[in-house]
Amino acid sequence: MSQINKLKIFNDPIYGFITIPNALIYDLIQHPYFQRLRRISQMGLSYLVYPGANHTRFHHALGCMHLMQKAVDVLRFKGIAISDEEENALYIAILLHDIGHGPFSHAMEKSIVEEVHHEAISLVFMSQLNDEFKGQLSLAIQIFKGEYHRKFMLQLISSQLDMDRMDYLKRDSFYSGVAEGNVNSERLIQMMNVVEDVLVIEEKGIYSVEKFLMSRRLMYWQAYLHKTSLVAELILTKVLKRAKELTLKGITLPCSEPLLFFMQNRIVLDNFNAQTLDLFSQLDDFDIISALKSWQGQDDFILSSLSKMIINRDLPKIKVVTDKLLLEDMLPLQERFAAENNISIADTNYFIFKGKIKNQAYSKEAEPIRILKKDRTIEDVVEASDQLNLKSLSKSVTKYYICFPKQLV
Amino acid sequence: MSQINKLKIFNDPIYGFITIPNALIYDLIQHPYFQRLRRISQMGLSYLVYPGANHTRFHHALGCMHLMQKAVDVLRFKGIAISDEEENALYIAILLHDIGHGPFSHAMEKSIVEEVHHEAISLVFMSQLNDEFKGQLSLAIQIFKGEYHRKFMLQLISSQLDMDRMDYLKRDSFYSGVAEGNVNSERLIQMMNVVEDVLVIEEKGIYSVEKFLMSRRLMYWQAYLHKTSLVAELILTKVLKRAKELTLKGITLPCSEPLLFFMQNRIVLDNFNAQTLDLFSQLDDFDIISALKSWQGQDDFILSSLSKMIINRDLPKIKVVTDKLLLEDMLPLQERFAAENNISIADTNYFIFKGKIKNQAYSKEAEPIRILKKDRTIEDVVEASDQLNLKSLSKSVTKYYICFPKQLV
Amino acid sequence: MSQINKLKIFNDPIYGFITIPNALIYDLIQHPYFQRLRRISQMGLSYLVYPGANHTRFHHALGCMHLMQKAVDVLRFKGIAISDEEENALYIAILLHDIGHGPFSHAMEKSIVEEVHHEAISLVFMSQLNDEFKGQLSLAIQIFKGEYHRKFMLQLISSQLDMDRMDYLKRDSFYSGVAEGNVNSERLIQMMNVVEDVLVIEEKGIYSVEKFLMSRRLMYWQAYLHKTSLVAELILTKVLKRAKELTLKGITLPCSEPLLFFMQNRIVLDNFNAQTLDLFSQLDDFDIISALKSWQGQDDFILSSLSKMIINRDLPKIKVVTDKLLLEDMLPLQERFAAENNISIADTNYFIFKGKIKNQAYSKEAEPIRILKKDRTIEDVVEASDQLNLKSLSKSVTKYYICFPKQLV
Amino acid sequence: MSQINKLKIFNDPIYGFITIPNALIYDLIQHPYFQRLRRISQMGLSYLVYPGANHTRFHHALGCMHLMQKAVDVLRFKGIAISDEEENALYIAILLHDIGHGPFSHAMEKSIVEEVHHEAISLVFMSQLNDEFKGQLSLAIQIFKGEYHRKFMLQLISSQLDMDRMDYLKRDSFYSGVAEGNVNSERLIQMMNVVEDVLVIEEKGIYSVEKFLMSRRLMYWQAYLHKTSLVAELILTKVLKRAKELTLKGITLPCSEPLLFFMQNRIVLDNFNAQTLDLFSQLDDFDIISALKSWQGQDDFILSSLSKMIINRDLPKIKVVTDKLLLEDMLPLQERFAAENNISIADTNYFIFKGKIKNQAYSKEAEPIRILKKDRTIEDVVEASDQLNLKSLSKSVTKYYICFPKQLV
Repeated sequence: MSQINKLKIFNDPIYGFITIPNALIYDLIQHPYFQRLRRISQMGLSYLVYPGANHTRFHHALGCMHLMQKAVDVLRFKGIAISDEEENALYIAILLHDIGHGPFSHAMEKSIVEEVHHEAISLVFMSQLNDEFKGQLSLAIQIFKGEYHRKFMLQLISSQLDMDRMDYLKRDSFYSGVAEGNVNSERLIQMMNVVEDVLVIEEKGIYSVEKFLMSRRLMYWQAYLHKTSLVAELILTKVLKRAKELTLKGITLPCSEPLLFFMQNRIVLDNFNAQTLDLFSQLDDFDIISALKSWQGQDDFILSSLSKMIINRDLPKIKVVTDKLLLEDMLPLQERFAAENNISIADTNYFIFKGKIKNQAYSKEAEPIRILKKDRTIEDVVEASDQLNLKSLSKSVTKYYICFPKQLV
Repeated sequence: MSQINKLKIFNDPIYGFITIPNALIYDLIQHPYFQRLRRISQMGLSYLVYPGANHTRFHHALGCMHLMQKAVDVLRFKGIAISDEEENALYIAILLHDIGHGPFSHAMEKSIVEEVHHEAISLVFMSQLNDEFKGQLSLAIQIFKGEYHRKFMLQLISSQLDMDRMDYLKRDSFYSGVAEGNVNSERLIQMMNVVEDVLVIEEKGIYSVEKFLMSRRLMYWQAYLHKTSLVAELILTKVLKRAKELTLKGITLPCSEPLLFFMQNRIVLDNFNAQTLDLFSQLDDFDIISALKSWQGQDDFILSSLSKMIINRDLPKIKVVTDKLLLEDMLPLQERFAAENNISIADTNYFIFKGKIKNQAYSKEAEPIRILKKDRTIEDVVEASDQLNLKSLSKSVTKYYICFPKQLV
Repeated sequence: MSQINKLKIFNDPIYGFITIPNALIYDLIQHPYFQRLRRISQMGLSYLVYPGANHTRFHHALGCMHLMQKAVDVLRFKGIAISDEEENALYIAILLHDIGHGPFSHAMEKSIVEEVHHEAISLVFMSQLNDEFKGQLSLAIQIFKGEYHRKFMLQLISSQLDMDRMDYLKRDSFYSGVAEGNVNSERLIQMMNVVEDVLVIEEKGIYSVEKFLMSRRLMYWQAYLHKTSLVAELILTKVLKRAKELTLKGITLPCSEPLLFFMQNRIVLDNFNAQTLDLFSQLDDFDIISALKSWQGQDDFILSSLSKMIINRDLPKIKVVTDKLLLEDMLPLQERFAAENNISIADTNYFIFKGKIKNQAYSKEAEPIRILKKDRTIEDVVEASDQLNLKSLSKSVTKYYICFPKQLV
Repeated sequence: MSQINKLKIFNDPIYGFITIPNALIYDLIQHPYFQRLRRISQMGLSYLVYPGANHTRFHHALGCMHLMQKAVDVLRFKGIAISDEEENALYIAILLHDIGHGPFSHAMEKSIVEEVHHEAISLVFMSQLNDEFKGQLSLAIQIFKGEYHRKFMLQLISSQLDMDRMDYLKRDSFYSGVAEGNVNSERLIQMMNVVEDVLVIEEKGIYSVEKFLMSRRLMYWQAYLHKTSLVAELILTKVLKRAKELTLKGITLPCSEPLLFFMQNRIVLDNFNAQTLDLFSQLDDFDIISALKSWQGQDDFILSSLSKMIINRDLPKIKVVTDKLLLEDMLPLQERFAAENNISIADTNYFIFKGKIKNQAYSKEAEPIRILKKDRTIEDVVEASDQLNLKSLSKSVTKYYICFPKQLV
């Protein structure tokens, strides 16, 4: 295909148009590894709460690349030198930063693929693609690994104010309709600058940073940790655990070949070889949801009950409190449920369980958001803010939950 | 569950909030038949062109109901009597009007379920639900069948300016990012009135009606019949046909049980019984896409090739022209392709084929859009418009296409 | 005019449509007192910073009424009894709550009309209108004065989470393009409830309240107290003071009759009689800006210099700091400016001056925002929030500024 | 001021941010000639119908420049050479294309400044600025006059699909809330190309062009020629005519000096000298509205009555029909009004009058919109469209109106 046909444009309800900057990026997007992201929901099962939240990791990755293009424009306009090679590496790195995500990765990482984190898998993908594309991804990988000397490039890809967060907060807020989670990415990018290869936000952008952190906090409690999303994800984790357990016992459950592989094998980074990558790259939401659909009819009470809960959105009750002590004692519930359903007390753990969730809008331990003050000094945003706000946003908040079947209410 | 808990609200990126008006509606939405719509994409495979277009028939049905609530408000404000029972029936009818859609229904109706139209299936669903809900859907069904004496009620549900079109044009435009397809549903509803039980639009709304029809036309050519969406749907139809063919020959293809049933049986309205409905109600996008994913590895060259095209978005070339004569002669292409791939000329029809598409933004034969003029007379919008515009919009436009593998270019 | 013609609709870029609920409201809007608000900018001189911020108090008042209609709907849906008479009084009260605003009222209240606050003038207007409309505004006035027993009605009109703030934050954010100041009024209203005639927000709305307060704070620092808006307003205050001073010395300055009246007379609430009201009701932005335009050519150096600054947007320099001590000593600047322009040191105060600005997003002293918890207890939002956030938002922030002519830089 | 401080950004509710590309543009914007546009409403008196329509010619001019920046980016991306000097000239020309507008220019050009068109005045302004800026505007003026050999540059500034129309349709639609008038400027610009120095739209943009023309037509009938806007403008024209008439008879009316000058003198292009320009540059909406406010109290019955109509938005009745013959005979109305108000029949023409309005969404006589077809041929959009639509849009539509005082109804 000629070069010119690769100068494509995507429609985006959020940014209007997303432009593919060059043929290499075009080819990466066309690769089956990347096309697969079209079949992975960005917000997992949140569409059970927010019916609009069906957007995909594919779209998010494009959105990040779009923001990166804006960031490069702004920084160059302010006189920061960015070579064409660096520019291209930034686009590749942000495009592929999430390519290691499997379907419903939070649930997956707690059940089937317990010992390999999605970032590690992203690197395996990138490395494989670098081979296929004859080394053209090398600088991108170097930046992604934090091995490039110009630190701000990594910060644009992965930090507390990176293109990833700017796009996902904006996009998740947009599609879910949680309008208050919207962040003004355009303004935040306008306020970016680079001092000695470190990313900074100009002082007049400080309210925008506060607003960004507030939005992040709001999105956590109102969307990502919304109690119905949470219970759905917890049940999904339980289903997958149960299925793996049964499989390892030798029971054959209907499911796709790639899913079967991960249920039959213990995968760690060391045995994540070419064949594993190939199978992993075939996994997406369709494998999981189709499996659940067919497991609804399986004999195992636990497996079929949990599967139905998700497919028919008939979820258990969940109670969230700020003080662990306020939660009921589970034992009476468990005894009742075990008796009613003729299962062991141990097995009631699939239906009745406790846990905690935690969120911190800004971490003082991680790479800080730096403010460039008018006198050219640089300060952590928490210090630069004129209020206690940010201090409070950097406090970690913990909540406690208990889940149990509705009929026990 | 108590009544009060059923007064739920859905977030909607388009309308802000969608309110569930009463407990019966709540229970219908909770029913697995309706929940299934969460797993059916509203725009089929269009997300291969517009990455944002992942919205579902579930969300669309809720959106229609929301617009119906607005319409009832406006009409009552203008003095039109609508009883509580009628109001409720309108909500039920619009909510369920599309419940008979299967996954990718255009492709399905041309391959696997060839002889039953989705509207007929909607009625089967409604009738089944009416049994379960003890006759509470009777008036809704009566309206939906066109048997209720107040004609405007059917017009609100199904006509050339109904809640269905108002929501899907708006929603499809919104999610695809084809901003120009947006329609001003709120204004159109404000302009509605009823004269002798017939729906009319007040004269000052005439430009809005024209704009609505223009948007419809634009959405057809730019989205629904976009050449890439079209070729994807055509290929999907071919895959399903091929799979059914192979199945009927006795070859077992991996796929879900419900899908298998429809591949093994010829279903017509007469044998669409309770068991058929049950199996149909288990079918959704996940059955189809998961099947395609596994068919990529099947021996049959045709089945595997076509499946890969969709999964990897590696689609054939399509050429669309306004004059059939401009299309190439297919035979040389077919001969070349047959030779190169060692298949029969007949089988090249799976890869190389012609066809036509047709669209008409407004039909003068169907139930017209009526304008209520200032002098209280009523006119078809085509007559009432001060220009040739609408006349031209009621002309049917035909285009011709040819599809063939990229390597033949 | 017939009743039916008064059922009018306004287009609003923010809410879509604003409906006039009845003929009395229509007649109030048509009254010259209310039409005058079309000529008063909602954000004063902020359009010198944000070129889109040309919206008027007229539009804001309509917007508030629209939100009040939503609030009445939501509260009635939740079972709170609101009679038709009360409903109507709420609409009247919110519509007229700001009718006492003069043009650029912050500057006016610090220069020409120093001793009468705009709220007092609103009541004079309402009382006059109540006479004209034969007592139909009595309940509205009672509510507005806080004399009605159902306290939540006043809270909807004037409190820390009233329709006024919800509309102006949303509207000012929208027109100025300071997107981050947007508030989700629709959601906040959905979360409202009334317990024992007191307005509360349901617990799940707490993040929305926090977001609302953050937006308010952001709008203060980024828009209302933006340093260029601030300096423009300060200079306008100086111009008006100077003009009044010259007028009182017997110098005749070109200006409109109503403006002349207020420059020649000292107005206090006691002499704010029918004639004063009549003249006040003729004052709007056009009197002020037209006066400034003609004063540019006056002999008085101070008057003409300051007038030009605003008309040509050639404003002095302003420096804003958080610590008063960081500001320069003014004396050297004053001496230099006095010498260069041949004016007295005292008169340099028109050009070189210091001051402070203060803001508090939430006041713990005022009527609190109350959260209705799930256990039906009620708590101040500051206590109910799980973080220090709100505590910090209720701290008052003070900043200090100095202004001086650009040529002194 | 340093170069860097001139790299300013404006907030825009429509485009997000508008960036000033260089210091010369900054200085032009700062010039009092340009700042004056802040005081001229873009849509004249339309805010009497659409309360949000208070946006100014200042903001529109900035918006046009922003779109021009996008157009330059797109064209360069497609390989069209545009030198830095040409780029800058394009920005200057579009920024200043409307600088010759006076306040309420339609009414002005039919009453006080009858013989000089605003485009001629724009050129006088540009020429004066070119002197002040030492010839830096020469190329912009050359393009604006149509004297530059690269024709597409003029087409970007002034044609049937120029940046001017794209911004004003979008902006007027946005601020008025007539959502259907919105045009997808971004997409239209993406579809632009240049062939042999002539501007073309690529074929796939054809539906967008149709939509653009439909929006234009809708905005004409729904906003610009809305019957209330129309009657307001007609009355304003009458007021100004009357005032000029009285002034020429030697009666002194209160008004600003610049307005007085234009009422006392007959201005043609030949005597539009430096002094005239100076006075013209002081005229804005404030002169007109302030004059009307004070004329309300004048003795002349005609002048005061008409002035009150606008200030209090108490406008005459207007009837619009498509067939002239449907209009009443005016004589009986005139006789009645003359008798009731004790004025001559001739003078009733200020209150009772007929006329016609005309609009054509696309002119086949003017510079066409050219479509670049896939086979690289170029066709007028009317020919390229697959329907009668555009043919119908190029038909001129005429309507007829009659205005008369409400009391005569």
